[in-house]
Amino acid sequence: MRNIKLTIEYDGGRYLGWQRLGDSDKTIQGKIENVLSQLTGTDVEIVGSGRTDAGAHARGQVANFKTESDIELPAMQETLIRNLPQDIIVKKIEEVPERFHSRYNASGKQYSYYVWNETIPSAFERNYSFHYPEQLDLEKMQAACQKLIGTHDFIGFSALKKTKKSTVKTINNITIEKEGSLLHFTFVGEGFLHKMVRVITGTLLEIGAGTIELDSIDEIFESGIRSDAGITVPAQGLFLDEVYYD
Amino acid sequence: MRNIKLTIEYDGGRYLGWQRLGDSDKTIQGKIENVLSQLTGTDVEIVGSGRTDAGAHARGQVANFKTESDIELPAMQETLIRNLPQDIIVKKIEEVPERFHSRYNASGKQYSYYVWNETIPSAFERNYSFHYPEQLDLEKMQAACQKLIGTHDFIGFSALKKTKKSTVKTINNITIEKEGSLLHFTFVGEGFLHKMVRVITGTLLEIGAGTIELDSIDEIFESGIRSDAGITVPAQGLFLDEVYYD
Repeated sequence: MRNIKLTIEYDGGRYLGWQRLGDSDKTIQGKIENVLSQLTGTDVEIVGSGRTDAGAHARGQVANFKTESDIELPAMQETLIRNLPQDIIVKKIEEVPERFHSRYNASGKQYSYYVWNETIPSAFERNYSFHYPEQLDLEKMQAACQKLIGTHDFIGFSALKKTKKSTVKTINNITIEKEGSLLHFTFVGEGFLHKMVRVITGTLLEIGAGTIELDSIDEIFESGIRSDAGITVPAQGLFLDEVYYD
Repeated sequence: MRNIKLTIEYDGGRYLGWQRLGDSDKTIQGKIENVLSQLTGTDVEIVGSGRTDAGAHARGQVANFKTESDIELPAMQETLIRNLPQDIIVKKIEEVPERFHSRYNASGKQYSYYVWNETIPSAFERNYSFHYPEQLDLEKMQAACQKLIGTHDFIGFSALKKTKKSTVKTINNITIEKEGSLLHFTFVGEGFLHKMVRVITGTLLEIGAGTIELDSIDEIFESGIRSDAGITVPAQGLFLDEVYYD
């Protein structure tokens, strides 16, 4: 049995997210499985490193699948590129050991989030950023990043209800860079809760705008109260950049 | 009578180009005129600096219109931004002398063209570049730029048939910069014939790929024969960057 690893770039604007939903043709997983099933002549199920939200993008989503097919990798990649819509691109295809599992073996991920920080919106960034025109105190936002980095219970910065599963996660790094009129946030961590990157970004923006206090971060870690954190910024600014494997 | 100058950014992907076509709702000029006519309560006709092709983009198209309305400029801009689709943005609005005419007074223009020069296509650049995976000899292309700069009869590098109107134009500068996997071409000139930037870019690419000889440029200037020049690259890679006024 061959185990094939895919590295996938997608513009998620037209999709309901990564994860296949029944027979819907509107998910990235579904689109890729359809092409692979046709190509190999048997039903193929692919395992992604994790879900991405409806409308969110990826530069380096990883997935793998098992197959008996002996089609060579370059031919497989060519078929995927030719038969998938132009907004889903299989950038890399590799044969990996049979035990490789793109979700269980992932040791970390990097996400980016982009904010268009101008009064006037942008025609070109509209689908790839969040338009937030407030004046921002970047130094205060950098101080907030330092508070967020580390191992904490992030439930107050997520879309999760209290659960038996641990909501303790480790963020290794957060950076904020000004790139012209865009603010580019990056998040590196071992794992992220549902909507965690979007709630943290919203909280950082509100701290920068002055509508949330810097010290609220400690309080939210303590209380776990979601409503004390900031807005959930929209999915269109979110990119899964890379999935790490040791 | 007030004369108002607009500087406009648009993602042309969904449109039939700048110029209004009858009652079609599918042109950028038409969209803007509709909003201005509603706002001022009388039919407004705007004059653009020139047409842009179906699917082509602009970072700084310029247009002007005359109006008796006394609505203040900031309110006018806000209404335009709120009522136009998100892919058309009025970046700047100014009152100009009554004699200002955005086409007649334009002294030059800058265009950009982007080429995605990788084997694997890009999900994010697909609507803003031309995917051309051939290996390119950049030095030869730079030499070709030097031949094209200057005053020449560009009819062989355009979509025009022989005409009484002069097809002599002056190109002040052409640059080609590598920006990651993108090649960024810029063209500065006093004026351009229909599809001239796209035919020149196609010719430069074919010279880089070796399917057209460098010396062909001189021959095409001499003969005016369109079929000796390169392909017309698609409009989605083309941006009108700026319109110059003395």
